[in-house]
Amino acid sequence: MTKLLYGNPVASEIQLRLLNYMKSINKQPKIATIIVGDDVSSHKYVNMKEMASVKMGIEPLSFRLDKHITQDELIELIDKLNSDYEVDGILLQHPIPGHLNEREAFDRILLEKDVDGVTSTSFGDIAMGKNSFLSCTPAAIIELIKYYDIEMKSKHIVVIGRSSILGKPLSSALINEDATVTTCHSYTRNVEEIVGQADIVIAAVGKPKFVKGKWIKEGAIVIDAGYNPGNAGDVDYGSCLEKCSAITPVPGGVGPVTIAKLLEHTVLAAGKKAKYI
Amino acid sequence: MTKLLYGNPVASEIQLRLLNYMKSINKQPKIATIIVGDDVSSHKYVNMKEMASVKMGIEPLSFRLDKHITQDELIELIDKLNSDYEVDGILLQHPIPGHLNEREAFDRILLEKDVDGVTSTSFGDIAMGKNSFLSCTPAAIIELIKYYDIEMKSKHIVVIGRSSILGKPLSSALINEDATVTTCHSYTRNVEEIVGQADIVIAAVGKPKFVKGKWIKEGAIVIDAGYNPGNAGDVDYGSCLEKCSAITPVPGGVGPVTIAKLLEHTVLAAGKKAKYI
Repeated sequence: MTKLLYGNPVASEIQLRLLNYMKSINKQPKIATIIVGDDVSSHKYVNMKEMASVKMGIEPLSFRLDKHITQDELIELIDKLNSDYEVDGILLQHPIPGHLNEREAFDRILLEKDVDGVTSTSFGDIAMGKNSFLSCTPAAIIELIKYYDIEMKSKHIVVIGRSSILGKPLSSALINEDATVTTCHSYTRNVEEIVGQADIVIAAVGKPKFVKGKWIKEGAIVIDAGYNPGNAGDVDYGSCLEKCSAITPVPGGVGPVTIAKLLEHTVLAAGKKAKYI
Repeated sequence: MTKLLYGNPVASEIQLRLLNYMKSINKQPKIATIIVGDDVSSHKYVNMKEMASVKMGIEPLSFRLDKHITQDELIELIDKLNSDYEVDGILLQHPIPGHLNEREAFDRILLEKDVDGVTSTSFGDIAMGKNSFLSCTPAAIIELIKYYDIEMKSKHIVVIGRSSILGKPLSSALINEDATVTTCHSYTRNVEEIVGQADIVIAAVGKPKFVKGKWIKEGAIVIDAGYNPGNAGDVDYGSCLEKCSAITPVPGGVGPVTIAKLLEHTVLAAGKKAKYI
C-alpha cells in the first residue's frame, strides 16, 4: 500500500505551534506581499498566502505593482518596507518581469525580514548552519519528510531542479541533514538512471509529469514540489503511485506546508522583534 | 596514457595574468594572514602563501596568535583589519582551536576583504551567481579543470566531502558549471558505487588514500584536493593512475593553484579599491 504524504496535517501542526507561540508575543505580525505584473498564478498563490495569514492573525499588507515598474521603483518600495518597523516580513513573489533584476531585488530585503528565504545571505547562512530562514518550499519539504518519520541520514536523495529558491537551497539543506545528495537539472544527461538510484526523489523542475514511474526504484519515496496548470505536479502521479512506497499528492502535498512555513517565519520574525519592545 | 594534471602551469598562467593586471593599479596589494595556535601544517601552508605573495609583489602582514586567545580578541583583530584601508585581504587560516567559534570569526571578515572566500555571504553570493570570491581550493579546482579543457557541462561529478570551505562551495560551484553533482560525506553508505558512476571524482575528504582505483570508472578523471601527512592525497594514487584518464598529482596538483587563486583574489580586491583612489 503506497502511503500518501498529505500536507494538511503537517501544516496544521505548524499552525498549532504558531498559535501557542503567538500568545507569548505582544505584537501582531505583519507581512508585506509584493507582486509585480499580472501573472495569474502569482496572484493566486499570494492570495492563498494572504488568506492563510489572516486566518493565523497575521496582517498582510498588499503591494501590487505595474508590470512596467522600474528597478529603482521596486528597490524604493523594498527599502521603505525594510525601514518600516511595523513590517515583520517581506514577500516578493517570484517571478517578476524579465526587465527587472530579481536577484538584486531579493537581496535588497533585510535579512531579518526575509521570511520567504530568498536572499543569497539567507541561503549562505543556512548552508553554513546559521540561523536564518530557509526558502519556504525547501523548508516545507524537510518539515514534511520529518513529520512522516522518513529518515534522511545516509539516504540517497535526488533533487531535480537547481533554481535559486528551490533546487539549490533544498540540495544544500539536505546535505546538512546527512543525506547523500545528487542535483540534476536541464543539462543532466541520464536523469532516468540517476533517479533510478534514489531512495527519495524530489521533483522541483517545473515541468508537468516529468518524473515517470518507470524511472524510480521500487519502494522509493517521491516528493513532488511542482505545481503546473491543470493541477499537475512535476511527477507523473499515476505511474509513480504503483511503484513508490510513499508520495505527496498534488495539490495537497508540499503546497500547504510551504504556506505554513511562510507564516511560521513571519511569526518568528515578529517574535524576535517583540523581545525588544 | 594517463594524463597528469599538474598545477604549476595553471598557477603560472594565473600569475602572469596578475602581473599584467597589477601594472594597471597604483597600489601594492596587502594581505593580512592570521594563524591561531601552533598547528604545524597551518604554519607551513601560511608560510608558503606568504612567500608566494612576496614573489608576486603582494605584502603579507603576519599575525600569529596564541592558542589561548579569546573569541573577543580574535574578533577585535579582524575588526581592526577590516577597518584598515591598507589591508586588501584577510586570511584566517583554518582550523582554529576548538574553544573558538570559527564560523563567527570567518563571517566577521568584510565581504570585500574575504579573499579566501570563507564567509557565508561569499558562499551564498557565488551560489546565486553574484560576484564574490569563491573559496580558494574550489576556485583552484575549477580553474584547473578549465585549463586542461575538461568539460564539466552534463558530466556527473562526485564530490567527496562537505566542509564549509571545500566540499560545500565546490558542489555549489559545479552545479553552476552545469555538471550533475553528487555530494558524498561520512554518512554516505555506498560511496564506492557512487564514485563508480562519476565522470569526474573530486576527493576533498581529508582521509589519506581514501579513493581506491577499483572504485572508479575506467577513464574517469580524478582530482585530489587532499593533502595529508607524508605527502599523501585523499586518493590512492597508484591504483587510480592505472584506471583513470587523468589525475592530479599530490603534491603539485591542486595545491599550487589554490595559492595562486588566493593571490588573484587579493590583487583583485586591491584593484577594486585602487579604482577609487
